[in-house]
Order: sequence, then C-alpha cells, then structure tokens
Amino acid sequence: MQQSSYSSFHPPQRKLMGPGPSDVNPRILEALSRPTIGHLDPLFIGMMDELKNLLRYTFQTENEVTLPISAPGSAGMECCFANLVEPGDKVIVCCNGAFGGRMKENVIRCGGEAIIVDDPWGRAVDPAKVEAALKANPDACILAFVHAETSTGALSDAEALTKLAHEYDCLTIVDAVTSLAGVPLKVDEWELDAVYSGTQKCLSCIPGLSPVTFNERAMAKVKNRQSKVQSWFLDLNLMLGYWDGEGKRAYHHTAPINPLYGLHEALCILYSEGLENSWDRHRAQHNDLKAGLERMGLELSVPEAERLPQLNAVIIPEGVDDSTVRNLLLTDYNLEIGTGLGDSAGKLWRIGLMGYSANSGNVLYCLSALETVLNKHSN
Amino acid sequence: MQQSSYSSFHPPQRKLMGPGPSDVNPRILEALSRPTIGHLDPLFIGMMDELKNLLRYTFQTENEVTLPISAPGSAGMECCFANLVEPGDKVIVCCNGAFGGRMKENVIRCGGEAIIVDDPWGRAVDPAKVEAALKANPDACILAFVHAETSTGALSDAEALTKLAHEYDCLTIVDAVTSLAGVPLKVDEWELDAVYSGTQKCLSCIPGLSPVTFNERAMAKVKNRQSKVQSWFLDLNLMLGYWDGEGKRAYHHTAPINPLYGLHEALCILYSEGLENSWDRHRAQHNDLKAGLERMGLELSVPEAERLPQLNAVIIPEGVDDSTVRNLLLTDYNLEIGTGLGDSAGKLWRIGLMGYSANSGNVLYCLSALETVLNKHSN
Repeated sequence: MQQSSYSSFHPPQRKLMGPGPSDVNPRILEALSRPTIGHLDPLFIGMMDELKNLLRYTFQTENEVTLPISAPGSAGMECCFANLVEPGDKVIVCCNGAFGGRMKENVIRCGGEAIIVDDPWGRAVDPAKVEAALKANPDACILAFVHAETSTGALSDAEALTKLAHEYDCLTIVDAVTSLAGVPLKVDEWELDAVYSGTQKCLSCIPGLSPVTFNERAMAKVKNRQSKVQSWFLDLNLMLGYWDGEGKRAYHHTAPINPLYGLHEALCILYSEGLENSWDRHRAQHNDLKAGLERMGLELSVPEAERLPQLNAVIIPEGVDDSTVRNLLLTDYNLEIGTGLGDSAGKLWRIGLMGYSANSGNVLYCLSALETVLNKHSN
Repeated sequence: MQQSSYSSFHPPQRKLMGPGPSDVNPRILEALSRPTIGHLDPLFIGMMDELKNLLRYTFQTENEVTLPISAPGSAGMECCFANLVEPGDKVIVCCNGAFGGRMKENVIRCGGEAIIVDDPWGRAVDPAKVEAALKANPDACILAFVHAETSTGALSDAEALTKLAHEYDCLTIVDAVTSLAGVPLKVDEWELDAVYSGTQKCLSCIPGLSPVTFNERAMAKVKNRQSKVQSWFLDLNLMLGYWDGEGKRAYHHTAPINPLYGLHEALCILYSEGLENSWDRHRAQHNDLKAGLERMGLELSVPEAERLPQLNAVIIPEGVDDSTVRNLLLTDYNLEIGTGLGDSAGKLWRIGLMGYSANSGNVLYCLSALETVLNKHSN
C-alpha cells in the first residue's frame, strides 16, 4: 500500500479561467508563506480587525457581523441557513442553477420547508414568479437566491428581489460567491440581510474561506431562536465570541492563520484598486472576450442583459467534443476552462474572468489557444 | 470607518510553544505559496490520492475513508458526530477537559442524548467509570473520548477504552487532534472506529484542515442512517463523491488547494522521518523540558503515567502573575506559551512541544527565556 518514499508536490503554472479557483495574485501566494503566529496573538487580532473592515468595504456594508468563515463557500452557505432557519420555517428558494438546488438541500437539513421558485438554467430569477410565491406563502420568513449563478453565468437582480422580500416580511439569504468584487454588490444600499461569498472567485485568493455578513434584522432572528443552531462549528453566537469579543477573544476554533494572511492581502489589493475599478475591469475584459469569441463564431448562452462578465457560458458548437478540447487546452496550453454542470455538462464551456484572471493577457491567450485547438479538432 | 489605505500584514517570527498552532516547518510554508491549480485538475487529483495514502500511514490504518476535512479540527469533530449520531442515539461522552464538553454539545445538537462520564481535569479517562456507564446504558451506541486532552495535557488509553466500548456494542469516536504524530496512535490495531485530528499540532502544518478516518463499522452506521446527515457541508456520503469517486470526481465543494499542498508536504516530512522516530523525538524533548523545569523548581500538573509529552501543563508558582509572564515572553522573546482553559486559566501554563517545535533549540530557548522572565518578575 505504501510507497518507499514520497516527494513534494510541484504543481504546474496553469492559467485558471474556469468557474474558480481563479488565478491567484503572486502577492497573495507570498502572503500565505509568512510566518504562522498564534490565533490569540495581539498582532493577529489587530490583523483580524483590519480584515473585517476590509470585508465591510468589499461588501459595501457597515454591518458589525462581517467576517470570514474558516471553510469554503459551501460552509458559508450552511452558516447562513443553519443560523437563520429554524425547524418548521418556510423558506422560498429560487432555483435557476445548481446552487439554488444546494440552498434547498440546506433548508431541508435545517428542518425547514422549502418552497421552490423554478427558472430555466441560464436565466435570471424572475421577480414576478418570486412575488407570486411570496403572495401565496404569507407565512414564509426567508427568501433565498443566488446573485451570480456560477453554474450558468446568469446575474439576478438582488436589489429588486430583496425589496419584494421585505414587502412580504421576509429576510433574504443571498449567495454572492461569484458576484463579490466582480459586479456591483451593495449590501447596505440594497438592504440584503444575510450574504455569503467565497475567496477563490473575484477576490483571487485561494479557496477555503467564506466571507459572510449579517445585518441587524438577520441577527435579531439568530438571537431570538427557539432552538440551538444545529452546527456547533458554524454557530454565529459562538463564533462572534472570537471575532467580536470586546477586549477578550474567546477561543472557539483555531483560525486558519495563513489563509487569513492571504485574504487580508487580497483585500488590500482590491482596496487599492478600488471596487468600482474592479467592476469596470471585469466588464471590459468580458467585452473583449465576447468580441473574440464572436469572431470565432461562438455564442454565449445567457441573454445579454442577464450575463455575468466574470463567468461566460459558451455554447459548444455541434460536433465538437467538450472533454477533448478542454484536455488539450489543459495539457498543451496549461489553460483551465470549465464544463457545464448538470444538464449542461458537455454542452457549455464556462470561461471565468475572475479577479486576477480578468486581464487582457489572459483574454488574448485564451482566445488564441481555443482557436488553435478548435482548428486542430476540426481538421 | 475606512482608512485611506491598508498595508500588507507582516507577522513577526514567533516561537510557537503553546497548545497550537505549533511552529510550521519552512518547507511547508514554501509549499503553501506554490501555484494554485484547479480542484478537478488531474494532477491535483493525483496529489489527493497520495495525500490519502500518507494520512493512512499517519493514522496507521488501511481505512478506505481517510481524508482531510476542508476546515479546522472542530469541523472534523462535527463531521464525526453529524454523520454517526442520529436523533435519539445515546452517546457516552468522557469529560476530562474542555474538548469532552464540546463533544457533549455536538451530541445534543445532533439530537442525541449525551451520558457524561466525568473525570477530573488533568487526569486520564478512568476505564472503570466508562465500563460502569456502558453497563448502565445498554442502549448506548457510541462512546466518545479525547485521546490527548489539549486543555490539560492528559493522555487516555484509547485502546483500552475502545475494547470496552466494543464489548458493549458501541462504536468509538476518538479525538486525536493533539495525539496524531506526537504519541502512538494505531487506528487499526486498536480498532478505533471514527477518528478526527488537526493539522496545526504535531503535524506542524498550518491550522485549517482536519484529517479524519472511518472504519467499515462506522461507515456501515453512516450508510444505514434513517435520517439525512444534518450538515450538507460535512455529509460524508457527498464528500466521498469528490475524494473517492472512482474515475470521475463529483464536485462537492472547492477544496482548499494550497493548504492541501501544505498538508501533503507536512506528511512527506513525517513519512521520511518515520512515525516512531517522531514519537521518540517528542518524548525526548519532553524529558529535556521537564528536567529543565524541575531544575527551576516548577512542577507539571499531570501525574507522570498520564502525561502527554507534546503538551506540558506547568503549575504557575504562587505569587506569579500568568499574563505578565506570558506577555513578557511574547513581546521580549517572541515566544508564545499558553494559559489554562476554563478553571485552570491563570493557574497553569501549557507549553507545547509539537511537531517542528519539538526540538532542542526550542526547549533550551524556552527554558532560558522563562527563567529570565521569572527572575525579573520576582525581583
């Protein structure tokens, strides 16, 4: 079973233009390798405070409860549902892609009842259907939806959906995994109640952390729960003793020190670029990519008004084999692009332009490599 | 609220001799900064397979289900309880320190009933009490205990406790966060059923991952559950689609790529040292530390036969102020040692000799620094 020896793993230098992880800025990779210090070290705690402020900037919020969960985006999702959904709660879940389905699973596992609003994959959530569901379920207390569907490349109107939810006395849980820093996301202005994201998309940090933010309305529900949060690890009340303890930080779990160095560095880079500039850069690179794809006769699957700049779902031309192309791109060009999820596997490519990957070098490289491989393929 | 700019965080070079994180081998820090590749990249999947084999070596097991959870040790604990405990299950929990209490919380949050076997903090779990509890609760199905209590420095007899549990038809859940690689831990030989650990103790890796291993008895209980695992993120059935998928790896969550590079490197280092050599090194450094502490008139609180070499609980002499000493060690000597948890806060120091920190340079430095500070303090 065991070999006589094992060697260090030396990964190649890929260009990551799939649905995430995206290319990581070398400044962030260097930050990861800085000396580990203790999770209760006063210098580390000072860094945590700065990190929370930087996250507030990134989320455009003044929410006190704004912190990175010590686990990937799926855990951030679970943190929102486990803290906000109590057994018996009725939750309206918008399903227009893979991650809506995961939200539904979370509701059920928290003992809640999920009311599903279906929309076609590749389209935005339809506010009219949501309003009908809210009207039909006056006892619903939460509306959950995905802002930017990573599985399809569709952007929904988080502001409009939240406005509707509030008219019907529902809180919102918003998946902002792929939207954060890639398209406008204004937590306070749009009054989003609970939002989770990931680090490996438009923040260009490594995967493994999940920034979340909860406003006072959401925290009131968490604090007035009748039952304990079913997850000890994700219980916000306990976590805040460490992240928000005034003066004294209570030990909850050992924070992932070095990944947090990386996230701090990623947010410093974003802060100095400026959020608006980051949004504009994603949009500009998307326009260039789209123009190049169209010159090659390729089409995007999402209607223009609902398209994410940072995740481009490209229709695979008839007769072209998905995995042959992606394997050639990976092995001959060190370029990773993604395939579709679920029904769209083999039918769509997902080309990410996220964070550090959203630059003209990557766009030109991707277009050339794809064109070369497609030409070889059709010969 | 926001500053005009933020700067990169540059932590000092500490010596970490608290209860964890421990000093990280520079080879591991370098590994963290290697280029990020995709979580479905064939090269990454090859690395995952090697990582699982290395974990099997480290746990001394052939268990198929052996993998690192993408979150800290507390999530590894929750993974064991959430998968194995069903609502109504009776679980006997041994409480001889802080982490037993956390196990109890986990049982309750999974809807189980916790039967507590109390032992004094700083002592091993008493097998006679455990047997009495097993006898008194013939409907119990799990025995949970901590192998190496990080909060007190006491080592329990995992083999004997598991033997008892099996006599009474109970599975065991074993906390090996601090024991793995620091003292003998033989999962197969001792027939431990479900075991979780952490990366930031005797593996000397960064915090943030939790290796777990489940044998076939444990997996049979997971697979025959009547109810869904309440956590989507920690559901082993879903996780195994990614970590164990034959041929095709199903996406579950985005693995924390770079931290996994670090863990792979840590396990390569351990494999080349050899587990037995690692155990011996921890023991030898402990003996030197103990001799030095005794020369200074300091005493260890745990009886010799139950003492962990890698976590030394030292009785703070009367008249000495805990935090003054620890602050001086940190600020003047860049040396971190821990204080006690719970009732022993301010009464005990916890001096860790874990992984890369268990070397003679650290032992001598710690003894000299502590002696100097104590002399200053008493003047």
